[in-house]
Amino acid sequence: MKVLVIGASGTVGSAVRALLLERGHEVVTVGRSGTADVIADMTDPGSVSRMYEQVTGLDAVVCAAGGAVFRPLPQLTAEDFEATFRGKALSQLELVRQGARHVAPQGSFTLISGVLTEEPIVAGAAVSAANGAVEAFARAAAIELAPQRVNVVSPTLVAESADAYGAFFPGIEPVPARRVALAYLRSLEGHATGQIYRVTTP
Amino acid sequence: MKVLVIGASGTVGSAVRALLLERGHEVVTVGRSGTADVIADMTDPGSVSRMYEQVTGLDAVVCAAGGAVFRPLPQLTAEDFEATFRGKALSQLELVRQGARHVAPQGSFTLISGVLTEEPIVAGAAVSAANGAVEAFARAAAIELAPQRVNVVSPTLVAESADAYGAFFPGIEPVPARRVALAYLRSLEGHATGQIYRVTTP
Repeated sequence: MKVLVIGASGTVGSAVRALLLERGHEVVTVGRSGTADVIADMTDPGSVSRMYEQVTGLDAVVCAAGGAVFRPLPQLTAEDFEATFRGKALSQLELVRQGARHVAPQGSFTLISGVLTEEPIVAGAAVSAANGAVEAFARAAAIELAPQRVNVVSPTLVAESADAYGAFFPGIEPVPARRVALAYLRSLEGHATGQIYRVTTP
Repeated sequence: MKVLVIGASGTVGSAVRALLLERGHEVVTVGRSGTADVIADMTDPGSVSRMYEQVTGLDAVVCAAGGAVFRPLPQLTAEDFEATFRGKALSQLELVRQGARHVAPQGSFTLISGVLTEEPIVAGAAVSAANGAVEAFARAAAIELAPQRVNVVSPTLVAESADAYGAFFPGIEPVPARRVALAYLRSLEGHATGQIYRVTTP
């Protein structure tokens, strides 16, 4: 399959990319800058549109990118909420909304949320809200997209990111990025739709 | 208790207002126009700020208002998604964010989502996303707001609105607005927090 991987240079994205290549898929990487095959900013609908014009013959889009503000509730501003919706929720909705016209009829979308949808942490209220939006959207979009599919991977703290984010997740056992990548593969190669694949410690 | 009721002229809001008055609570109504005690537009953070300055001594805020776009996925625009987040999600998050400084230390917030978080319908993808955001936010905000509380009422199709919205909900058995109002009362007078009170047919 020809798969567009958004956020391919990140912790999760690079694990997804590596696994897809192992499985023999063709990967087109997307990043905001750097060495990605396509440079695009998914928070800008115009940039998303140009991205889809640059890449043809896509079988699937997988997203491992999302900007979000972690800040204690009393310090969160209206702008923080808006930036988090824009960076993690509206951006991913737009990938699907526009992508439906560009991806193969039996193609799929795999989005990212996170454990905070169900399991809150201090300083995570804006992120929880964005994650909840992504998951509910995928359940809903699934019934209208068919035969295209859309699923969400919801990872807990990722081991390779624990230096950066671990302090927000006291007592949470991290999972290796490879396990998160497996959930993306399940979404991509499985035939299910409207699913939330939660990757946490048992 | 002194309770701010936002959207008090709507189907759910007027049922909530009536039930709170029966229970002996003091009700201050908020609407975008008309005969409400306070005129405010909750999609505008500045208007929310002026609203909280006008009303002192609040024990609780309940919201029964939220603007959302119902439209089939292929016709939804980026602007529809944004308008729905702004009208139903960001607006309610802002009520809590600012309200935390204005409501009593043991006070509460009760927000509204809807059955589409879990049970999608055609033309409901933007609304599902906004609802999912509200529910995940409430679960997260609950752990940071305590001893203040925040819950969500998630109604299915309301009988009194079935003329306007029934066509979107084929085969869904509506519930009377009075049952939805009871869920608000449960949030208000109960001591639970971070709860989603789903009001559907059994």
